Order: sequence, then C-alpha cells, then structure tokens
Amino acid sequence: MTRGFYIGRFQPYHDGHHTMVDHIAADVDELVLGIGSAGDSHTFANPFTAGERIMMITKAVEAFDLTTYVVPIEDLERHSVWVSHVQSMCPNFDVAYSNNPLVVRLFEEAGIEVRQSPMFDRERLEGSQIRQRMVDGDGWRETVPQAAIDVIEESGGVRRLRQIDQSDANGST
Amino acid sequence: MTRGFYIGRFQPYHDGHHTMVDHIAADVDELVLGIGSAGDSHTFANPFTAGERIMMITKAVEAFDLTTYVVPIEDLERHSVWVSHVQSMCPNFDVAYSNNPLVVRLFEEAGIEVRQSPMFDRERLEGSQIRQRMVDGDGWRETVPQAAIDVIEESGGVRRLRQIDQSDANGST
Amino acid sequence: MTRGFYIGRFQPYHDGHHTMVDHIAADVDELVLGIGSAGDSHTFANPFTAGERIMMITKAVEAFDLTTYVVPIEDLERHSVWVSHVQSMCPNFDVAYSNNPLVVRLFEEAGIEVRQSPMFDRERLEGSQIRQRMVDGDGWRETVPQAAIDVIEESGGVRRLRQIDQSDANGST
Amino acid sequence: MTRGFYIGRFQPYHDGHHTMVDHIAADVDELVLGIGSAGDSHTFANPFTAGERIMMITKAVEAFDLTTYVVPIEDLERHSVWVSHVQSMCPNFDVAYSNNPLVVRLFEEAGIEVRQSPMFDRERLEGSQIRQRMVDGDGWRETVPQAAIDVIEESGGVRRLRQIDQSDANGST
Amino acid sequence: MTRGFYIGRFQPYHDGHHTMVDHIAADVDELVLGIGSAGDSHTFANPFTAGERIMMITKAVEAFDLTTYVVPIEDLERHSVWVSHVQSMCPNFDVAYSNNPLVVRLFEEAGIEVRQSPMFDRERLEGSQIRQRMVDGDGWRETVPQAAIDVIEESGGVRRLRQIDQSDANGST
Amino acid sequence: MTRGFYIGRFQPYHDGHHTMVDHIAADVDELVLGIGSAGDSHTFANPFTAGERIMMITKAVEAFDLTTYVVPIEDLERHSVWVSHVQSMCPNFDVAYSNNPLVVRLFEEAGIEVRQSPMFDRERLEGSQIRQRMVDGDGWRETVPQAAIDVIEESGGVRRLRQIDQSDANGST
Repeated sequence: MTRGFYIGRFQPYHDGHHTMVDHIAADVDELVLGIGSAGDSHTFANPFTAGERIMMITKAVEAFDLTTYVVPIEDLERHSVWVSHVQSMCPNFDVAYSNNPLVVRLFEEAGIEVRQSPMFDRERLEGSQIRQRMVDGDGWRETVPQAAIDVIEESGGVRRLRQIDQSDANGST
Repeated sequence: MTRGFYIGRFQPYHDGHHTMVDHIAADVDELVLGIGSAGDSHTFANPFTAGERIMMITKAVEAFDLTTYVVPIEDLERHSVWVSHVQSMCPNFDVAYSNNPLVVRLFEEAGIEVRQSPMFDRERLEGSQIRQRMVDGDGWRETVPQAAIDVIEESGGVRRLRQIDQSDANGST
Repeated sequence: MTRGFYIGRFQPYHDGHHTMVDHIAADVDELVLGIGSAGDSHTFANPFTAGERIMMITKAVEAFDLTTYVVPIEDLERHSVWVSHVQSMCPNFDVAYSNNPLVVRLFEEAGIEVRQSPMFDRERLEGSQIRQRMVDGDGWRETVPQAAIDVIEESGGVRRLRQIDQSDANGST
Repeated sequence: MTRGFYIGRFQPYHDGHHTMVDHIAADVDELVLGIGSAGDSHTFANPFTAGERIMMITKAVEAFDLTTYVVPIEDLERHSVWVSHVQSMCPNFDVAYSNNPLVVRLFEEAGIEVRQSPMFDRERLEGSQIRQRMVDGDGWRETVPQAAIDVIEESGGVRRLRQIDQSDANGST
Repeated sequence: MTRGFYIGRFQPYHDGHHTMVDHIAADVDELVLGIGSAGDSHTFANPFTAGERIMMITKAVEAFDLTTYVVPIEDLERHSVWVSHVQSMCPNFDVAYSNNPLVVRLFEEAGIEVRQSPMFDRERLEGSQIRQRMVDGDGWRETVPQAAIDVIEESGGVRRLRQIDQSDANGST
Repeated sequence: MTRGFYIGRFQPYHDGHHTMVDHIAADVDELVLGIGSAGDSHTFANPFTAGERIMMITKAVEAFDLTTYVVPIEDLERHSVWVSHVQSMCPNFDVAYSNNPLVVRLFEEAGIEVRQSPMFDRERLEGSQIRQRMVDGDGWRETVPQAAIDVIEESGGVRRLRQIDQSDANGST
C-alpha cells in the first residue's frame, strides 16, 4: 500500500490540480490532499475558507478511484518546522508530490522522497489568473471542475472575490 | 439535505463516539467530524496526533452509510471566536451535536441549533479511562472500534502513551 | 496633571474595585483602568468578554469626578515584556496601583512607581466568591455597583456562568 | 438607544475621521471607536502606539455630544474570525460604519448592518498623505483636529516618524 | 568530532546539571546546552529570564575543557514539531542527553539517539527544592556552582523569587 | 566592566559584521551578538537557520580577544515590546551598537545608549548582495570570514539558497 501527499492552496481547486491528482492516482493507493494556508481567507490571493476548499476538493476527487484524505494545514510561519507540522496533521505518507522549489527543498532536507513533473509549475501560475477571471467575469468556469464550480457558486464566492478586490491589503484602515 | 457537525478530541475514537455517530446518522445526510485540540499530541490527555486521529475516525466511520468530512480544528485559545473558527474550517453545517456545556453555550450564543442527548456526556468521561487502561494494559480494546484499534497499534500508540505517562507536564525538565 | 494606572481582570467589576477607584481618585487627575486577560471569556475564572467588562466599568466609574480611560489588555504570555505591552496600549501614566506581588515586582523592575494598600488584596479574593454566588444564586448583587449589575443582567451573564460552570476546562471534550 | 461602531487605524486621527464621527453622531446615541492594528507601532504605516491613538481620539471626540468608547483591537491575522473578535472586545453595537470593502464584506457575511458613504474612502487615502507631510514638515497640522495635534506633539510623534522613515521594513537588519 | 545536546530549564543551573555536563564531557567534543521555556520568567517555576540563565550556565561551564553553545529555546506549544524547532535553533548535534520520558520519546520518534542515566531524573526534582530553599532562605548555596550563585545574587534573583511567590498564578488579579 | 550589544540578522555573517565586531572590541569587555529574526530560514532574505548562524558567528569571533554571547532572538512582531524582549533574552548590556534607524529609535525611547557609525549602514546593504552572489556563483567568498565559509559549505547553504530562490514567497501554492 502506498500513500502519497499533495499540497496546494487550492484557491480555487482547478483543472491543473485535477489533472495532477489523476496523474498521481496511477502511482498510489491513497492520497492525502493538504490545503495550505488553511487559516487564510477573504483576500485576493486566498479568497476561500478552508471549509469551502474542503468541499470543492472532496466533491471533485470523487471522480477518481482513489481513497483520499482532505486535510487543512494552518501556517505556523516557520519553514524549519513545516514538514513536522504537516506530518503531525496528516495520515502517514510515503512520497510527496510538488514542484514548488521550497516545498521540494524542505521535504528533501527531512529525508522524504519528492516527485516533480514539469506540469506542476504551470498550474501554480493559473491560480491567480483564474481568480482574475472571476473578478473580470470571463471564462473562469472552463478551467475548474464542475463539482468545484458548484461549491463556488453556492458560497457566493465570485461576488466575495470582486468585493474584496476593491480593498487594499489592510482591512482596518 | 442536512449536514451535521460533531466535535470531539477523539483521544482515542471509541465506542461512545461510534454509537453517537450511528445515532446522528439517522438525522442527517452528511456529517462533519471536527477533531478538537488538533495541534496537541504526546501528552496523557492528548496522546495521538491529528493525523493519527484522522485515520482512526475515517476508517471507523466507513461502517456507516453516511458522507463524512473529518476536519482537524486547531485551538485559537479564545472562546469568543471559536464558533467562527470552526465555521471557517468546516463545510457549512445546519446543526451541531454536543453535550459539553461550554460548546452548547458557544453555539447557542452564535444562534446555531445544538442537539444534546444524555449519552454524550457519559462518553466524555470514558476517554481518560480508556487511556488509563492503555497504560495499565487491560481491557481497552473492547471499548474501541476495530478500525481504530488497527491505527493505534500501527502507530505504536500504546507504547507512546505509557512512555509519556512517566513524564511530568513540562517537557524540558 | 497626574495620571494613574489600575489593572484588574474585573470579573466582574465589584465594590472592592469601586472603593479602590474612589481611593485613587483622591491622588490623580486621570485614571487608566486596564482590563487584564482581555481575550479570555466563557470560563468560570473569566466569564465576561472584554466588551462586557468595558461597559460595566465605564458605566460604574461615571459616579466619580475623574477622567477615565478603560483599556482592554490582551495577554502576551510573557512576563518580561508585560510592562512594555501595557505602556504601549495605554495613555502615559505616572504611577501604578496594585497589590498583586507579581504586578508590583514587574513595575518595580521597570522603574515605575507602584502604590499598594492592604485593601487591594482583599478584593482580589472576592472575585471568585462573587462568581460562586452568581452560580449559587444568592447575594452577589450586594457586592457589585448597580451600573455593573445592569450590564451583567442585560448580557445574560449569570445564566452563562451557571452553564459553563458545568463544563470541564476543555471545551472540545 | 442605538450604538454604532466605527473602525479605523487612526494613524493619525484626522479631519476626515472627525467629520465622519460628526456625521455618525446624527444617527446614534453612543459610538464605539475601534482602533485597528492596535499592536502595531513604530512603522511608517503605523507610527503611533494604541495608547497614543486612544489619547488623540478621546480628546478630539470630546467636541461632540456623544457617549463614546475607544477600544484598541489587536489583529488576530484571520479574516474569518475578525467580526467575532471585534464583537467580543467591544460593547454591543447595532450598526457598523465603514467604506472599506473588506470590512463591509466581513460584517455582511456575519449578518450585521453596515452603512457606507462616499466620503469614507477619501479619508482612507489621506492617512498616508498626512504621514508623508509629517515627514516632509509641511502642512499636516491643517488636516488634524487641535486635540490630536497636542497629543502628537507631546509624544514626539513627528520626530519618531521621520526617524523610522529612514529604516527599511526589517528592524534587525 | 562529536557534538552533544543537553536540554534543561536551568531554574537555576545547579550541581545536578553541573555533574551531568561533567559526565557528558567525557563523551563529546562539543556540547549544545539548550535552555527550555526560554520565554518564561517571573514565576515560581521559572523565576529567571533566559538572559540570566545564559549567564549562569556560560560562567559555570568555563570550568570544563569543552566547547559549549548556550542556546535559549522558546516554547512553540506543540510537541509534534519540538524536535525540528530545537534542530533549527541549535548547531547540529549527534546525540541528545535526557532522562525526561517525553523528551526521550520525541527524539526517538525523530530517529535521534538519546542517552539516559539514572542520575538525570534525580536532578530534575532538585530544581523546585532549590527554589523553595531560596524562598525559605536556607541552604540553597551549597547546591549551586559558585559562578551561578554570583549571577543570581547580582540580579537580585532571590528577592524576586520571594516576592512573586506571594502572588497567585494570574498576574492581573 | 562594559558589555555591549550588537544585533543583526547575519544572513550570512560577513566581513562588514566582522569589521564592526573588531571596532566594538576596542570599547567593551564583553559583547552580546543578537541574531535577529531567529525563527526565519529557507527564504532568500533569511536562508540560514538560527543554528547555522550561531555556528558562523561563534567560529568567526574566536578571532577576537573578546568574551562573546551569541543569542538567537525570535521576532515577537511588536516593535513596542522589542527592547524588553531583547533584554530578557540576553545578558545585561550597557550600550547597544546599531545604525538601523528603527533599532536606534527603539533603544532611545527605552533610555538605552546607542552608538552609531557611518560604516554600519553600508554593511546592511551588503547582505542581499552577498546572497545574490551566492545564487549567481561568483565572488561571495571574498566577503565572508573563512570560519563562516566553512559553516556555509558544510550545511549545503549555497545549494539551498539557489533552490529556494526559484520559489515564490508562498510555499504551499
């Protein structure tokens, strides 16, 4: 039995992530999906709460024949303990999937196998583009799995994103 | 569609919790199981990590015909924001289940329906008894679902509990 | 112009505090009332929120001919920086009033004048007695200024205290 | 009886805020003034301590026939619990005043009435302009109420702002 | 070259610790002395600041022919990341020395060699006895190295301990 | 006996710092070297852990005839309590050395003597240049003391810096 770990902020969970999970499903029996920066929400970079992201991911990955665990990971603001924090919050895993150079480095220093693929990085860029499309109102739906679209629409997520996009970073000015 | 919320520390997930989930399953279509004090581990009161508890619960609740979400909830050390914190970390829910007077009070002040039953409290007491039985070596297995026993044994949880039970509260002497 | 500083948790603000403020009013032109452990609420030791305590104190001290500033002070959990924290959160003050040995010591190490009186300590003990009387239902009103009683009754404070008193220390069972 | 809530960072409290309070005074009997980012100080964006800001505001709002509560609000770095945090730190309020899109959104999601006006936003911009004028030495006094000017001058605030403006963001080089 | 790690709270550094360092000196070329709960001070359990403890230890271990590094370790309040935290704050080490069952367990789970000896535990108990003797005024000096006595006396440590011992745990009454 | 305090992030400890320590050595008998932002690591601005920086500094300052204390200082994210925090973590000192305007201001407000020199600021700028040279592979060794070079090379620090430099600021995307 092999269990993998795949981390993202999933703001929102989109086709890049979905393709990635499909790809990982060929390698592993079970997969832990870690939701990074779980405590953040209501900003342009992180509009959705952890709860909303749990719903998007859980509903979307039902499409795969794979046992999954969806786990919010709150930031501890310390890179040096991040791997231990992830390990304590998640079911044990044998291999981590990431193309983020910092994540790769941290797992390597901790002696954990990391698998990369050129496609991972491309997706990373798409997150902010999809959010910008949500604000502009054009064409975000074709890049997000239907199950995730349903969650976003039910939570009024697009309206929230447009509203907070007019705000500057400091909410209490 | 009704979604419920049930919170516990699940140290460990035992038959009291299991009966409770069975009972709730009659009321709701989906259930969020919140793991309280998720950041705590390696003490007598909280021996198991959030990851270990996710495994115990996920494997045990497969026994029910119920869609579940297992969500670790880290403490923010402020009762006044606890309900908002839970709501942001979890899929939306319609009703909370608890017999803990503080939890009941906090949900009530926030205007959320809480359902109680006399059996809830009894279980709460059982947690520390089961941990003491693990230390003493007698009879804890008959109070824990088989799926949770498997996780505890795989993680060396009983040996950990015995070892840290010899320690005082302060880990740095 | 002399400004004094008087700190308490004010759970609740009672006649001991009130007598104390009356006493201080003879010494100073203005008084900063610091509300300690401002982030704590919904426990037997700290049932009221900072907002509720601001109301109790503000309404009660209107009885005196004294300019007052009521300032919640959140705990930083570090005694060594506590005085600096208090100073940054409060208007400048010339003298601190306390009979708590730790508070006295911390101000002295920081080179700030502290005035003590035998009566201060007696009040400290009254806080928990008054809360116990609230739970038991007898005789707490005669130890609390009318303005504070009004705030406590408006917020349902006595019912809250009774409800959480049945809970153990850990809100998530 | 109606109680309003108005939040700002008040770095410094200036004529835009003052006009705003005057405007709100027509609507409400009592007003809670929340000081945002209360723990921040000694930066260009947040030069003044919470204590200094309490003084500026308290002295300036004496000009109005309005019962006020001036409450420092420390950041919890979590938008999802911010409204609960504000509510626990402040006397109860019926309506919030803000034109900051994030603040408006957060109160709306919590079901609290928010009133906006075109003028609110304009002031927000003035904060950094006034601080820049303090650094440059020209013309900040005509945009700040006299009572706030007195507090700023007593605390050596302009000199502090000029000195830290030469620093980069990271205080430990 | 072998480097060891020895952790304690060192409240104060006493003959038990000193004997222990002497014992470890036979095994290693260099020793990291970690000061646990470094952020705590001004309580009966933790009267001395990290700075005072650095002085006690540094002056006392000059007696040995051993390269030492004295490193304050602030608590992160999470056992699951404690070993990573220690590793990031300290020079690399090959072996840890402790008899505290929790510390032993945490290092073992992280795959780090731990050496124990029956004497370690005995010392742990002595810390609170020595502090009680400081309060009572009899006989603490014969259990503490002269270099540490000098630091304690210079800082007025005994007077501080007596003063705060009259206080209850909560500094803000 | 005079003891000085010199703070830096020391990412890495370089010739600018080394010259500075040499210069301070003429003034004082003992020197506390405070390592700022001690909890940060694995970013371009702060690549090295506190433990690695302790090693660089300790080995390099052996060159001077000066008693030194190397103390990691974790950020508390509050300028107003920073001086008290530093004082509690460090042996007592009589004078601080810095040219950082914020550090100078904070010590001045706390009534502590600060000595500045034109050269301090120049070094500050060199930190990021040296890190950029490490990434680019040219010429960083001639700006760093040999003892620090040895530590950097032993820890694989240059490879780490290159790897994380490819990452964006947010490690969990």
